[in-house]
Amino acid sequence: MPVFKAPVDDTLFILNDVLGYERYMNLPGFSDASPDIVEAVLREGARLSEEVLLPLNQVGDREGCVRHDDASVTTPTGFKDAYRQYCEGGWLGLAAPAEFGGQGLPYTLHTAVSEYLISANMALMMYPGLTQGAIAAIVEHGTEEQKARYLPKMIEGTWTGTMNLTEPHCGTDLGLLRTKALPNGDGSYKISGQKIFISAGDHDMSDNIIHLVLARIEGAPEGVKGISLFIVPKFMVGDDGEPGAKNAVSCGSLEEKMGIHGSATCVMNYDEATGYLIGAENAGLKAMFVMMNEARLGVGLQGHAMGEVAYQNAVAYARDRLQGRALSGPKHPDKKADPIIVHPDVRRTLMTIRAFNEAGRAFMLWTALKSDVKHKSEVEADVQQADDLLSLVTPVVKGVLTDKGFDHAVMAQQMFGGHGYIEEWGMSQYVRDARIAMIYEGANGIQALDLVGRKLGQNGGRAVMAFFKEVGDFCEENRDNPELTLYTKGLKKGLNDLQAATMWLMQNAMAKPDNAGAASTDYMHLFGLVTLGYMWALMAKAAVEKRAAGAEGQEEFLANKLLVGKFYMERVMPETGLRKARIETGSDTMMELAEAAF
Amino acid sequence: MPVFKAPVDDTLFILNDVLGYERYMNLPGFSDASPDIVEAVLREGARLSEEVLLPLNQVGDREGCVRHDDASVTTPTGFKDAYRQYCEGGWLGLAAPAEFGGQGLPYTLHTAVSEYLISANMALMMYPGLTQGAIAAIVEHGTEEQKARYLPKMIEGTWTGTMNLTEPHCGTDLGLLRTKALPNGDGSYKISGQKIFISAGDHDMSDNIIHLVLARIEGAPEGVKGISLFIVPKFMVGDDGEPGAKNAVSCGSLEEKMGIHGSATCVMNYDEATGYLIGAENAGLKAMFVMMNEARLGVGLQGHAMGEVAYQNAVAYARDRLQGRALSGPKHPDKKADPIIVHPDVRRTLMTIRAFNEAGRAFMLWTALKSDVKHKSEVEADVQQADDLLSLVTPVVKGVLTDKGFDHAVMAQQMFGGHGYIEEWGMSQYVRDARIAMIYEGANGIQALDLVGRKLGQNGGRAVMAFFKEVGDFCEENRDNPELTLYTKGLKKGLNDLQAATMWLMQNAMAKPDNAGAASTDYMHLFGLVTLGYMWALMAKAAVEKRAAGAEGQEEFLANKLLVGKFYMERVMPETGLRKARIETGSDTMMELAEAAF
Repeated sequence: MPVFKAPVDDTLFILNDVLGYERYMNLPGFSDASPDIVEAVLREGARLSEEVLLPLNQVGDREGCVRHDDASVTTPTGFKDAYRQYCEGGWLGLAAPAEFGGQGLPYTLHTAVSEYLISANMALMMYPGLTQGAIAAIVEHGTEEQKARYLPKMIEGTWTGTMNLTEPHCGTDLGLLRTKALPNGDGSYKISGQKIFISAGDHDMSDNIIHLVLARIEGAPEGVKGISLFIVPKFMVGDDGEPGAKNAVSCGSLEEKMGIHGSATCVMNYDEATGYLIGAENAGLKAMFVMMNEARLGVGLQGHAMGEVAYQNAVAYARDRLQGRALSGPKHPDKKADPIIVHPDVRRTLMTIRAFNEAGRAFMLWTALKSDVKHKSEVEADVQQADDLLSLVTPVVKGVLTDKGFDHAVMAQQMFGGHGYIEEWGMSQYVRDARIAMIYEGANGIQALDLVGRKLGQNGGRAVMAFFKEVGDFCEENRDNPELTLYTKGLKKGLNDLQAATMWLMQNAMAKPDNAGAASTDYMHLFGLVTLGYMWALMAKAAVEKRAAGAEGQEEFLANKLLVGKFYMERVMPETGLRKARIETGSDTMMELAEAAF
Repeated sequence: MPVFKAPVDDTLFILNDVLGYERYMNLPGFSDASPDIVEAVLREGARLSEEVLLPLNQVGDREGCVRHDDASVTTPTGFKDAYRQYCEGGWLGLAAPAEFGGQGLPYTLHTAVSEYLISANMALMMYPGLTQGAIAAIVEHGTEEQKARYLPKMIEGTWTGTMNLTEPHCGTDLGLLRTKALPNGDGSYKISGQKIFISAGDHDMSDNIIHLVLARIEGAPEGVKGISLFIVPKFMVGDDGEPGAKNAVSCGSLEEKMGIHGSATCVMNYDEATGYLIGAENAGLKAMFVMMNEARLGVGLQGHAMGEVAYQNAVAYARDRLQGRALSGPKHPDKKADPIIVHPDVRRTLMTIRAFNEAGRAFMLWTALKSDVKHKSEVEADVQQADDLLSLVTPVVKGVLTDKGFDHAVMAQQMFGGHGYIEEWGMSQYVRDARIAMIYEGANGIQALDLVGRKLGQNGGRAVMAFFKEVGDFCEENRDNPELTLYTKGLKKGLNDLQAATMWLMQNAMAKPDNAGAASTDYMHLFGLVTLGYMWALMAKAAVEKRAAGAEGQEEFLANKLLVGKFYMERVMPETGLRKARIETGSDTMMELAEAAF
């Protein structure tokens, strides 16, 4: 069975030593999460991950979900009980508003724990993940009555939520959507249409399901300007707040997917189902984007979490599998052969994954802190700066961490040779599960376009300029520290490539948008390389300072941290030059080929 | 259902215009395959692929193989009949020796057709693929009696073959193998042991199965020096040449795999099964390598073929899927939205795949021609040169084309958005099927080590020097042709990087083998980039010359060829610099991390 140990010590190092978590103690929620509380929460989340969720991961993959003749859906053995334990532990509402029953703790802490839970069982964590997105939309756009009616049950987890955007003919381009809403005259609407790829659309883990559904009110404008968002409960909610009669919404079928078999992906049929407008008429897309942005960070976290658990399993196998001898002579002459971890090519693979994982973790938490500051700070300048950076890096978190998480699951699988290809060992599942994260919540090509076409230019480029300044200043301030030269030099070189590519875009993509599209994916990855390099530079500085302060018992941890960061600078960072070179070739060649000639 | 059209015209261009197929007409077998015969064979192979094999591809994935209580195995619906048609068409023995019933045609032609067949149904083509490897070993190492007994049935396909190397504890390191052979005193042996991951180990498509099994004769030396190769038929073959009593070999179970579900991957139990030595005692590894080398080219072809069919499906979807508008304004204003093929990021993806596919096809056929010359020429210098290059590039064919084939299947799947993740559309299957090619017949890390640790230094580097000279001379000879400057410049830059990396290895890896291991995967891909770049330069030259000669009706084909080659030089070739930079960082950092610290 696959192994997993939640990397609590690494999370604590990042929170406390790298990101200076204590500096945020003046924010609401943070004061309830002092460092010792944080550690206790992380260790308890680790236990839940390792003991409850992990053992169900392969079960979920093998059994999948089942739709019955009455259109009800059941989840794999054990999922319901594990979900109950998750809810009872208060995990679902960890960062949700206290007034509706949440714990009001930092989103950063929620992110840190969620990494472990997803590593242990990505499919199971889809259910609360979707619910959290729906909670966010209701908190932001719901009326007081809607909040009171839905939030407490959703935050305790007895009701779950969904997001209903996609239709068979319309994914990215929501302007094409056809699902209809007819006013009933009493403030409610009749919703009719078909939605596909609806995660957690139906299942047996909760008493009710609160669907958030995009639809077009009769007579509304065409395109994205005529889309509204509706709450459509699976069971109508009476004035007593309890679920009552079944609404006219049901699961038409389950999709047969490549992975995340434990997650019920439903075709949902709305047949004059009763729905309630949330937010303003025709402003549905804006409301939905509250969920989307949160969900994109969550999906980036999935990519990262898959890379982590795949790494851990590859390490365990590489230590255990005896095969051949080290090129430099036997390392374990007492054994019939050396473990394959002696081989440089195996170590290169493992360190490549790890160099991304540790930086990815820092990047996730750095981003989550921006979200906390944005939502909780009362200092306007801080809010604006945090919002700028959060908005800027959201597509990078989503696009880069999921591309890399998948690549790394594949690399980890490769370590197992033939054993990686058979389902028994679990590596195939990590690859198959990780694959979806590159696709949903906006395929990664869309993330890249969002970054290049929208985020870069927002407010006259204020966010990206601030980011470049922050990274550049860091390099400048630390350039004279000989222990950090390796890191600041590598980072500066990457930053130069990123700034040059940004300049190239400014000069070449305004007049010719195809140049932006042609550059987008390379630019997103270039941005990711530099951001993760920045995380490494921050981590190296923290490690050097902690070592100098005498970190008893942590010497080895800190030395390894510096070594893995060195690997990143040597082997990973040089990719920025290639990305820049590709960007600067522009779009002409790819646009010249006739459509029919492909 | 997935689409596929065999790219016959591209194959013909490569054979006739790029590789000068007619120049080889003096070799045995080639004279029977004049250009018009070649075209007819290709078109018939295309028909078989498209009409017979393609419709069974998803069937095979869904149904998989089934092992029954009596240990017999049945293949998916339709496989048996399709295999029969394949055999009746004489495809299995296309390049097999005429004296045993084969057609004795060029291996190059076999390779060209096999690409189509594998694109259409990789899992089904595993069965004849393994048989062809076994035929090669018997042709090379069998006695006259063994040849007469086994080859005719195997070449007509009524009997199939297998390769039995792997055991649970021993994959790459065959020295550890435990399967035993005890002499019966009559020249035969009792074979006992367990083999795993045996493709086509049991099935219902043939009357007999000829297992080639590595085992250790009692008292033989330990390690690889004590391994012998045995023929173990499923049914004993009587003097009448017909299958008789069942031998003591059976399928213990089928592996549950990530993909190629239509291929029966068996655990094979040998319980004092009767076997016959093939080749000399304790020289089994050498005999097995005849099969392995051929199989490695076949696996490289699988990677390439998956990339091709994935590309074709992505193009079809990108033309069909209406979503959003072109960045430069609507391209199909009559439709509700533009097809996604208008987007630069979609085109970038498609052209990246295609730029590898067309060069990969040329590389496969270039390599196959070397094999034909090696086996068929009577000019000693030609044989040596062909053998050198064939041996040098075999790990590149296997490692690079399978890594890229998988990457490209993933990229093609990405074009489909959520539809790519559900099994209905077939893209998941291409990804899952392509994945195995990176693993079996020597995982790609092993290929990289074979290239760096063995092939580079063979005969004092004679092969690699000859290759560098061939490519360098081409650049030199064509540098003054302005129509080719783009291609020769790009190629020369790549070659410089490859030569510098090779020099670095010579200076740094002799004394410190870890530097070779640390460089190996990057070096293999660097080699692949240059080799495929060389193929593009050859194709560009052929296109320019053909155009100058007035190629009526082919103008567009040739113009597109030059455009895709331009894309390769602009966007792909610059990766050589990154690969070189990584190689030159050496092994120190990755070797410094303690085993326990991973």
